[in-house]
Amino acid sequence: MNTETLLRQVSFIKEIDKLKYIYRKTKLINSDRNENDAEHSWHLAMMTIVLAEHADKPIDVLRVLKMVLIHDIVEIDAGDTFIYDALKNHTNTDEELLAAKRIFGMLPPEQAAEFIALWEEFEEGITDDAKFARAMDRFEPLLQNTSNNGGTWKEFDVGYNTVYEKKKAIKNGSETIWKYAEQLLNESVDQGILKK
Amino acid sequence: MNTETLLRQVSFIKEIDKLKYIYRKTKLINSDRNENDAEHSWHLAMMTIVLAEHADKPIDVLRVLKMVLIHDIVEIDAGDTFIYDALKNHTNTDEELLAAKRIFGMLPPEQAAEFIALWEEFEEGITDDAKFARAMDRFEPLLQNTSNNGGTWKEFDVGYNTVYEKKKAIKNGSETIWKYAEQLLNESVDQGILKK
Repeated sequence: MNTETLLRQVSFIKEIDKLKYIYRKTKLINSDRNENDAEHSWHLAMMTIVLAEHADKPIDVLRVLKMVLIHDIVEIDAGDTFIYDALKNHTNTDEELLAAKRIFGMLPPEQAAEFIALWEEFEEGITDDAKFARAMDRFEPLLQNTSNNGGTWKEFDVGYNTVYEKKKAIKNGSETIWKYAEQLLNESVDQGILKK
Repeated sequence: MNTETLLRQVSFIKEIDKLKYIYRKTKLINSDRNENDAEHSWHLAMMTIVLAEHADKPIDVLRVLKMVLIHDIVEIDAGDTFIYDALKNHTNTDEELLAAKRIFGMLPPEQAAEFIALWEEFEEGITDDAKFARAMDRFEPLLQNTSNNGGTWKEFDVGYNTVYEKKKAIKNGSETIWKYAEQLLNESVDQGILKK
């Protein structure tokens, strides 16, 4: 066994502890405390194993899990970009690519290449696995905001059309979950927690 | 599609948000902030995908991931039990079994049965998958305590022999990781952060 391999892996494992310090705009369900990226990634992983049966196309659950577990690690260097930030493009910035290379690059070369490719696949959102992973990433904050009296929608004055455009990505992964998500959005308008 | 299935799954997904409020005794690496169970579970999942190649026996990575992702969910009801608590048995208490039945029982019956079985398999630690999952669960706080000047060992005055007995579970999952863990324990004694 190559000691160098294990040592590189342990360095990476210690480095990614920093994901627990990266706070998102969304708040925990029924709470005023912001969610951090590690908690968020765990929740998406749980949603993946619970909701996989609703994927419209066959998915490889292990690959989807890897994607959601690692999808935000670049934010250790690049920081969290708010999905409704009008000034900053959310996906695949140069900064994030640099971060991916630095952080995943701590791993042994083969593993580093696998993780960078999985992260890029998630960001592109073209494969069936990536579509389902991205659907999870859009669905979780919907559950949070509807449980938090409008959450970030209210806090940052984001309206129905803008939210709807972002949430539509759920449809690419699962028609069933999308129908439920649409219903939640309509109910939110009726309840006055999302502005039409 | 059965709407009841999705509704039960969503209720479960919202319920387990509470794992983010359950704090462990161990602290984040290079930090004074305690780790919560959701962050811990995410970290074990990352360790599983990164370190799987070091398993002594063939493991099913997807099953191990499911185990580490769900292994602490019972603590939503039962609370965190400190591994070095001399008064309370750490594993599989009646309280935890009740919690497993209530929380996993929110899911559709087949999925509930799968999760309860996986949780019991993890607790028993007999299968190769469970042994590797438990090795991850023992290895993470070792990395934390050695990065935190002794961490919980110092804080709760736990000595080398006690720690060694608990950490030996790593050996059941991976000889390679165990050798490294043993070395970390010895170095900790040399550095005076673990009492012999």
